[in-house]
Amino acid sequence: MTTARRGRPGYDLESLLQVAVKLFNERGYDGTSMEDLSRKLGITKSAIYHHVPSKEELLRLSVDRALDGLFEVAASTEQLDGRAIDRLEHLVRGSVLVLADRLPFVTLLLRVRGNTKVERSALARRREFDRLVTDLVKQAEAEGDVRPDIDPAVAARLLFGTVNSLIEWYRPRRGSSGAELADAVCKMAFDGLRA
Amino acid sequence: MTTARRGRPGYDLESLLQVAVKLFNERGYDGTSMEDLSRKLGITKSAIYHHVPSKEELLRLSVDRALDGLFEVAASTEQLDGRAIDRLEHLVRGSVLVLADRLPFVTLLLRVRGNTKVERSALARRREFDRLVTDLVKQAEAEGDVRPDIDPAVAARLLFGTVNSLIEWYRPRRGSSGAELADAVCKMAFDGLRA
Repeated sequence: MTTARRGRPGYDLESLLQVAVKLFNERGYDGTSMEDLSRKLGITKSAIYHHVPSKEELLRLSVDRALDGLFEVAASTEQLDGRAIDRLEHLVRGSVLVLADRLPFVTLLLRVRGNTKVERSALARRREFDRLVTDLVKQAEAEGDVRPDIDPAVAARLLFGTVNSLIEWYRPRRGSSGAELADAVCKMAFDGLRA
Repeated sequence: MTTARRGRPGYDLESLLQVAVKLFNERGYDGTSMEDLSRKLGITKSAIYHHVPSKEELLRLSVDRALDGLFEVAASTEQLDGRAIDRLEHLVRGSVLVLADRLPFVTLLLRVRGNTKVERSALARRREFDRLVTDLVKQAEAEGDVRPDIDPAVAARLLFGTVNSLIEWYRPRRGSSGAELADAVCKMAFDGLRA
């Protein structure tokens, strides 16, 4: 079995994870076996198990890469002073940057359905994040900075619906940056498309 | 085999389609067999084949239910006079109403990946619809009604990203109407959340 490794570059955990998340996104987590991953990497399954104990651990590391990014933005948002609407905009902008920077990981996170312990835990963290967003919208509305004619829970869902929908079409390219994308999202969501 | 039908309500094509689209959304189109569908319906496979010649035909009928709704809105939009921004808002509002009214069908449409002829044809119609949206945004920008600091193609994607993201959380309930939802989407997208 070691012949499969001959002449191939070695993998560290990071490069293994990059390949795993790509495969999970293409075939679904349930539809991807360690056998598939070993074939894709051109290394043996035991070489993979040298880095991670299980497929579920690869899933955990992948969704945590996305969730940790989002919660770092949430933590930096909570450090800010000032009005809730500005903190909300900071949170939206930062979330788009995380999505653009960690696209395959965020894509996987958003497709998680809750069949395993890792998935259920990821869904729980997503709900926690969503509560932060809803709380900020409510606070901004209480401060008179968000229009009162949209339900704050609906506004929060629309906001992050817009952000999350980026995984369907955004592909990083030279000449287009996550910052421009974040700008466009914030312009539309906070001030509207209308001139 | 006919015993399975005893005491069960008969199915017409419409009720069969309602069950099929639900199953396709739960298990994926590829993951659903006619056997699964027959078990779910409590009728034989030949009873299903009495209504439709194939699983792919059920898929075609399902995605057409969504696409026909969207293209009816597009056609009514093209009948309108007046400024492009108002026609664009009409198109967005109408699309949300179609989504709310035909939620399982639109959900299936948006998950189609293009593995079969029916799926590829659905994707082609989606692209045609997207072009209509982008053209309207460009026209509205040329008329000075859309802010010039967002690329029209990006604006079009953000708009329909927001609309399409509704399938992730919107569930019709008594007391909440598609019209309210469409209002909220248009308020945010065209005028922004900021008070």
